[in-house]
Amino acid sequence: MCLAMELLKYAEEVGKEVEEFIYNVIKGEPWKVYEASLHYIKAGGKRLRPLVVILASRIAGGSEEIAIPGAAAVEVLHTFTLIHDDIIDKDELRRGVPTVHKLWGTDMAIIAGDLLFAYAYKCLLKALELGVSSDRVAKAIEALTDAAITVAEGQALDMMLPEVREARVEDYITMVSKKTAALFAYSAKIGGILAGAPEEFLLNIFNIMMNAGVAFQIRDDILGLVGDEKVLGKPVYSDLREGKRTVLVIYALNNVNLEKKAKLLKILGNRNASLDEFKEAAKIILESGALEYSESLAEMYATRALELLNELKPVNVEAFDMFKELIRFMIKRRY
Amino acid sequence: MCLAMELLKYAEEVGKEVEEFIYNVIKGEPWKVYEASLHYIKAGGKRLRPLVVILASRIAGGSEEIAIPGAAAVEVLHTFTLIHDDIIDKDELRRGVPTVHKLWGTDMAIIAGDLLFAYAYKCLLKALELGVSSDRVAKAIEALTDAAITVAEGQALDMMLPEVREARVEDYITMVSKKTAALFAYSAKIGGILAGAPEEFLLNIFNIMMNAGVAFQIRDDILGLVGDEKVLGKPVYSDLREGKRTVLVIYALNNVNLEKKAKLLKILGNRNASLDEFKEAAKIILESGALEYSESLAEMYATRALELLNELKPVNVEAFDMFKELIRFMIKRRY
Repeated sequence: MCLAMELLKYAEEVGKEVEEFIYNVIKGEPWKVYEASLHYIKAGGKRLRPLVVILASRIAGGSEEIAIPGAAAVEVLHTFTLIHDDIIDKDELRRGVPTVHKLWGTDMAIIAGDLLFAYAYKCLLKALELGVSSDRVAKAIEALTDAAITVAEGQALDMMLPEVREARVEDYITMVSKKTAALFAYSAKIGGILAGAPEEFLLNIFNIMMNAGVAFQIRDDILGLVGDEKVLGKPVYSDLREGKRTVLVIYALNNVNLEKKAKLLKILGNRNASLDEFKEAAKIILESGALEYSESLAEMYATRALELLNELKPVNVEAFDMFKELIRFMIKRRY
Repeated sequence: MCLAMELLKYAEEVGKEVEEFIYNVIKGEPWKVYEASLHYIKAGGKRLRPLVVILASRIAGGSEEIAIPGAAAVEVLHTFTLIHDDIIDKDELRRGVPTVHKLWGTDMAIIAGDLLFAYAYKCLLKALELGVSSDRVAKAIEALTDAAITVAEGQALDMMLPEVREARVEDYITMVSKKTAALFAYSAKIGGILAGAPEEFLLNIFNIMMNAGVAFQIRDDILGLVGDEKVLGKPVYSDLREGKRTVLVIYALNNVNLEKKAKLLKILGNRNASLDEFKEAAKIILESGALEYSESLAEMYATRALELLNELKPVNVEAFDMFKELIRFMIKRRY
C-alpha cells in the first residue's frame, strides 16, 4: 500500500475515534443548543487538525491514546470558530449543509459556538483521566488558549483588512498566520506536549506547521477563485461576494491600473453584484498575474515546511513518514 | 468601622488589584479588538465574582495573592458573556456606556467576546507562576470550564423560554441557576480549589453561592421592573421590551385571567410597543401579586444560603465575616 493510501486509511480511523470521543464528551441540555453545536461535526470534515495532534504525539514517542483528548480539543475549537465565522461572513453553506445560523438563527449560533469553545477545554482535560500528568495537561491547555487567542486576533485582522487602504501581502501573511496556520501549529505543539516532547521538538514542529498552514491557506484562496463548487461545498465567488482580502485580491489591487482597481473595489463585497460582474472581477484578478504570484508564494512556504521537517528528530519513524505525507497533502495543488 | 463599610473598602482594593492584573494579561494586536474586549471592564462594575473567589480562598486558609488569577478569570469570563448577551438582547446600554456591538458592530463584538473567553483561561493559568501546583490549576480550569458550559446552557434556556407554551417557575429557576447563579458558585469553588480546600468545603461553598445567586437574580428581576433607571444603568422596561421571562412575568402569565394574559403576551417582546403599553404590562404584572411572590421566593433562597453558611468551617474568620456580609449584600432588597 502506498503512503498516501495508508495516510488516508489512518486519517479515517483516527477521525472515527475522535468523533466518538467528542460525542461522548459533548452532551447536555437543552438539546437544541447541543444539536446546533454538533451540526458541523456531524456533517463531516477532513479532521486534519486532529491528525496533526496525533501524529505529532506519535512522532515524539507518545501514544495515539493520550493524544485523542488533544485531537478532539482542536477539532472542537476549530468547529466553534467556523460557527462564528459563518455568522460574520453571512455564509449559507458549509460542508454541504446549511450553516448553523441559517438553521437555528444568529443568536443560537453565537451560543452554540460559545458552548463548543468551553467543550474544547473539557475534551483536553480528559487527558488527566488517561494518566497524563497535570503538568503536561496544564501546558497543553496553555497552548490551546494561545491558539484560541491567536485565531481570534486573526479573525479580527481578516475583518479589518478590507478597511486598510493599501493592504500589502505582508498584512495578509500576518492575518492567515494567525487565523489559519496557528491552529495547525498549536495542534502539533499540543500533540508534542501530551507526549512529553522536549522544547526543541515543540518549537520545530510548531514552525513546520506554521509554514505548512500558510501554504495550505494560500492554496485554499486559489481554490476559492478557480475551484469547483462541488469540491468547495460552497458557492464559487463567495470570497469575492464577501469582499475577502485573499492573497489574490491583494496582489491584484496592488498590481492593476487605476481603472481596473476601481472596478474591482466596486464589485468586491457587493452582495448585489451580478454573476457577470463577479466573473469580470475574477478575470481582472487572473489577468493581473495574481494566480502565478500566489502559486509561487505557496510554494515558498511549502518548501520551507519541508526543509524544517528534515531537522525534526522523530522517535517513531512510521508516524514521521505519515506526517510528511500529511504535509504534502496540505500543501499540494488541488486544482 | 462597621462590617458593611469594611467590605466596601476591601471590595474596592481587590477590584483594583484584579483590574491591574487583567490589564497586564490582556494585551495584543490588533488594538481594535482588544479595545472592544476591555470596554466593559473599563466601564466599571461591582466585581462581585472576583470578590467571591478571593474570599473563598481566604476562608479556606489560602492567600489573596494566589486567588487573584482565579478572580480575574471569572470576571473576564463574566464580561465575555455580557458582550454576547448584549448582542442577543439588542441592548444599547450597559454600565452607563454604549454596548460593545453598538460601538464596534456585531461582528467585532462576537470576536471581542471570543477573545475574552480565551483570556479567562490565560488569567487562570498565571496561578502556575505564583507557585500554585498544576494539580490545583488543572482542577480550577475544570471548574472554569464547567462554569462556561453551564452559563451557555443557561443562556440557551433563557432564549428558549419565551417559546415554551406554559413556562413554570421551575423552568425559570433552572434557567437562572445555570445562567447566573452557577458562575457565582463556581467562583467560590475556584477560590477554594486554589487554596487547596477539601472536597466538603468546595461542595458547601458551591451550594451557598448557588442559593445566593438565585436570590440575587430574582432581586435583579424585581429591580428591572420597579427600579430606578439611573441605578440600573439601562432603560426601565427593557426586560419587557425584550420579552424576557423574568420570574415576575412567568408568575403573572400563570396567574392572571385570559384577557390580561393575552394583553401581556401582545406587549412582551414587542419592540414597537409604546411606553404606555409597557406601563400597562407592568401594572398587570404588579396587580397579579408577582412582586410579593417573587419577594418570598428570593427570601427562601436567601434564607437557604444563610443557613448553609452556618455549616461552613472557616479557617480564616475575618474573611468569613466579610463573605457573610457579601452574601447579605447580594440577597438584600435594593429598592
